[in-house]
Amino acid sequence: MTALPTLLDVIEARRRIERHIVRTPLHHYTSLDRLIGAEIHVKHENHQLLGSFKMRGALNVVSQLTDAQMERGIVSASTGNFGQGIAYAAKLLGSVAAVVMPEDANPDKVESMRRLGASVIFHGQDFDDAREHAERLSREEGYMYVHSANEPGLVPGVGTYSLEIMEDLPDVEVIIVPVGGGSGVCGACVAAKSLNPNVQVYGVQSESAPAAYLSWKEGRVVESPMGTSAEGLATRSGYEYTQRIMRELMDDFILVSEAELDQAVLLHLENTHNLTEHAGAASLAAAVKIKDRLAGKKVALVMSGANITLDQLRAAMSR
Amino acid sequence: MTALPTLLDVIEARRRIERHIVRTPLHHYTSLDRLIGAEIHVKHENHQLLGSFKMRGALNVVSQLTDAQMERGIVSASTGNFGQGIAYAAKLLGSVAAVVMPEDANPDKVESMRRLGASVIFHGQDFDDAREHAERLSREEGYMYVHSANEPGLVPGVGTYSLEIMEDLPDVEVIIVPVGGGSGVCGACVAAKSLNPNVQVYGVQSESAPAAYLSWKEGRVVESPMGTSAEGLATRSGYEYTQRIMRELMDDFILVSEAELDQAVLLHLENTHNLTEHAGAASLAAAVKIKDRLAGKKVALVMSGANITLDQLRAAMSR
Repeated sequence: MTALPTLLDVIEARRRIERHIVRTPLHHYTSLDRLIGAEIHVKHENHQLLGSFKMRGALNVVSQLTDAQMERGIVSASTGNFGQGIAYAAKLLGSVAAVVMPEDANPDKVESMRRLGASVIFHGQDFDDAREHAERLSREEGYMYVHSANEPGLVPGVGTYSLEIMEDLPDVEVIIVPVGGGSGVCGACVAAKSLNPNVQVYGVQSESAPAAYLSWKEGRVVESPMGTSAEGLATRSGYEYTQRIMRELMDDFILVSEAELDQAVLLHLENTHNLTEHAGAASLAAAVKIKDRLAGKKVALVMSGANITLDQLRAAMSR
Repeated sequence: MTALPTLLDVIEARRRIERHIVRTPLHHYTSLDRLIGAEIHVKHENHQLLGSFKMRGALNVVSQLTDAQMERGIVSASTGNFGQGIAYAAKLLGSVAAVVMPEDANPDKVESMRRLGASVIFHGQDFDDAREHAERLSREEGYMYVHSANEPGLVPGVGTYSLEIMEDLPDVEVIIVPVGGGSGVCGACVAAKSLNPNVQVYGVQSESAPAAYLSWKEGRVVESPMGTSAEGLATRSGYEYTQRIMRELMDDFILVSEAELDQAVLLHLENTHNLTEHAGAASLAAAVKIKDRLAGKKVALVMSGANITLDQLRAAMSR
């Protein structure tokens, strides 16, 4: 069984990726303080290269592939942000990438991958359909396969943003992280709790795609129907590697409704003047939901990505 | 006559303010490359503390005030972003601030100033009405007055973002900067042209508030009616100090329509997934307008601020 990642792995990942990424700001918003009744800071991974935290993990994984693996080319499955990271890392570091996406994928994310030179292959109804196809392509065509969550190199890579949170706000008490496959929240668990075991780390999913939540709750990988419009949270299954870290370290898991995600997108527009995709707003939706528990605490909300389409934004604004 | 600022002034300003501000990213967007037919990079001052570049100038000025001046308290006039900077700097560095704003000021910006502990005083129809009232308050009540453009400490402070552009993209050929009072574009002229005299610096205003444009064109400070909805561009007069720098160093001045500003806000939502106020989108509006002249060039667009209200956004989206 693969050993769990450590703080040292996160520090090594930072050395590997820091010249390629943005050290994103952690901004304090007094407008959100008033809304939640706590001291609210936002970690702006929506300002990251290509608009999401996924770049950190993709660069950490691809930069550790061997020359032989790079020559085979990389295949991955993604609802979009991880695929953009893989496409970018492959181009930057000298490989080629193919990304399998669900058929109704976010068109902005598809376009971005194509402009980065990746082949985009559409397959199936959701992330896990696409993932199975990518695994098949890897077996049959010889591509190097990189999973967007169940892959040991990702957690230390994406954990670098939580290391930055701890540097910028050493006395943070709660970190709230959107969960799709779980690499982000695992990185937060490893980086933050290694530095201060008292920091509470909460994951968030949509009620309409609770596979990771149910897997965590039941202590085993389970599947669950996937019906969220927040493609960054849209998994149909838990994954063994990230689930193991979550079970060991994560303190709680919050579910929010689709309407609460819409509302949180608008709350961010109004209060932080940031554009966020629905997954990126999930941390604020959770904070609104559990504000009584957060009262008076220092809280960091991870805004994991920006990549909402104009149609998604219009829909959120008209509901 | 005050000497023009130099690159060394910008470097000194950076030493003074860097631990308080964000070193904002300059991101390359292939989606905008295709739209404009050039290599388009965006300088993200919308990610700056409190959502605009003005913080850099305010901190540089307030951190150089004497103890006696700090004790008097600071008064300024602003359509919003500079006032937020002054309020923040005063609070951080131990003074109190009063900000005079036009009566129909952006409510998000008003709220932000109040949360930062500033007194907000409403006066008149536009920035210049507010400015005259602030000058009167300074004379009558003894406050230390800081002008939001016509103030030598501002240009080196806001020039720090252009120094960052030159570090990140040393072979940039054109920098396009939104102009209200002109401190931002003057900072770009000083920082960029000192390092490479061949860099072209273009200012942008709205056709509905062309006072700085006309002053530059005519070589003397003139007033002009102000009817733009982009409060960050909304001045009714040129200012002697910034006009002098613009006349000496700025290469061109582009006017865009209100409809082109609306369109640029939407283009940013779609192509960069960033929320920008109308002033912040003016650089993209200008690039669209002069795309033939930019063909094939390396261009930096300054996204000067994020602070659009939900009502302004809805209006832009419904037009």
